[in-house]
Amino acid sequence: MRLMATPSDLELANRLADAAGEAIRPLFRGEWSEEQKADRSFVTEADKAAEAAMRAILEAERADDGIIGEEYGTRNEGARRQWVLDPIDGTTSFIAGRPIFGTLIGLLQDGFPVLGIIDQPIARERWAGRMSEGTTFNGKPVRTAPCRELSDAVLGTTSPHHFSDHEADHFMGLAKAVAERKIIYGGDCYNYGLVASGHVDIVCEAGLKLHDFAALAPIVEGAGGLMCDWAGEPLHAESDGTVLAIGDPARLEDVLEAMGHD
Amino acid sequence: MRLMATPSDLELANRLADAAGEAIRPLFRGEWSEEQKADRSFVTEADKAAEAAMRAILEAERADDGIIGEEYGTRNEGARRQWVLDPIDGTTSFIAGRPIFGTLIGLLQDGFPVLGIIDQPIARERWAGRMSEGTTFNGKPVRTAPCRELSDAVLGTTSPHHFSDHEADHFMGLAKAVAERKIIYGGDCYNYGLVASGHVDIVCEAGLKLHDFAALAPIVEGAGGLMCDWAGEPLHAESDGTVLAIGDPARLEDVLEAMGHD
Repeated sequence: MRLMATPSDLELANRLADAAGEAIRPLFRGEWSEEQKADRSFVTEADKAAEAAMRAILEAERADDGIIGEEYGTRNEGARRQWVLDPIDGTTSFIAGRPIFGTLIGLLQDGFPVLGIIDQPIARERWAGRMSEGTTFNGKPVRTAPCRELSDAVLGTTSPHHFSDHEADHFMGLAKAVAERKIIYGGDCYNYGLVASGHVDIVCEAGLKLHDFAALAPIVEGAGGLMCDWAGEPLHAESDGTVLAIGDPARLEDVLEAMGHD
Repeated sequence: MRLMATPSDLELANRLADAAGEAIRPLFRGEWSEEQKADRSFVTEADKAAEAAMRAILEAERADDGIIGEEYGTRNEGARRQWVLDPIDGTTSFIAGRPIFGTLIGLLQDGFPVLGIIDQPIARERWAGRMSEGTTFNGKPVRTAPCRELSDAVLGTTSPHHFSDHEADHFMGLAKAVAERKIIYGGDCYNYGLVASGHVDIVCEAGLKLHDFAALAPIVEGAGGLMCDWAGEPLHAESDGTVLAIGDPARLEDVLEAMGHD
């Protein structure tokens, strides 16, 4: 079986994103309940409603596929095709009323990401990518930007608190190689969409889980960029949670060198 | 002369924001030139065009008022009324294609902020406040949110790189008092608007210049919040650049204590 997603997978993924957006929009900057999870992250009524809406569609239409959801767990664990759902990536931004969170929908085949969607339901912005098929932003093809030198790069990361001390040292190596005033913090998945569109050059993060990154690789790579872990290896279901997105693949060696990778 | 801004000042400020937005929108996620300034921050063609558009209106209609602009400097330095303009606060977010920067328009009377606007031209979101007159978001009155304990608070700051080591220690005292997963990074002026609207509880920053904070105090205080420097003193033209915005003024002492203020 080839590792690929079909047009009908993409059509379904778009409907999942539509359903999640319908669940999230009425709650943005409104009233919702929230609770803190074991990993200390927060989950709101909006996260739960959006994932439930997506699962209902998958269960009705793709009973044989697996589901790995951030809030409601795993179904059909052994299936070769797995839908990976993060109803709100950037729950803290959602809580704070900032429209730079996103719904993430990924499709894994044999453990490798083959399709991804980042949907920003408030601004109604959607990146969609299929491995080897190109990436679109609101339906129009997008490409990552060339980046001749690290000192020209715009670098994004969500929060310095997501790094261990050891990881922070590696990140700071990269931060020192770019212009300090071109580092953007916050943004979660939104920054990866901006890499695909050519506005951000590099995103460097750690501590990501499968539901955080599964959707991102097809989007960044479909647009001409590169995604890998901090060792430069492709992302897959067992990756260690360190993630690099690099708009211009020619900068990979420079990035790894700046991070002091052995 | 009472320290106040008139309805006609507010009407004029709204027209300034309209003009800045007209200059910025066509350049967002488009092609523009940029350069790095002596303070290592970046300035783009959009910053310059937006400030020029605002200055043209002020020079035509308020020849006696002063102007303090981030990009084009000071006019009528001795005037009692000074318009303080930051055409794009959050130029890095603008460069990165993130719609969470803003145009800042402040009016100082005898050195104290009496009127402010934060305008987000892409999302078409506008906060406007006059000291003692209340704050609006897109024309509708807004209020800050109550916050019973620091451990419930959403805390925002733009970048850890904007703190000196000494300042970072004070910030980390506050960061430890709130839930780690409720700290949002990035956002510049946009976070202060979200305090006024009751979505963010505290913003803590340092290294701000007059054009960064002059517009913010009337917006946060008009919505029922409090703005001060890290010593708890009101902001004015000679403030040291440390800034706190606190949605629930009852938390001021807790915030200063958490920051380890002497």
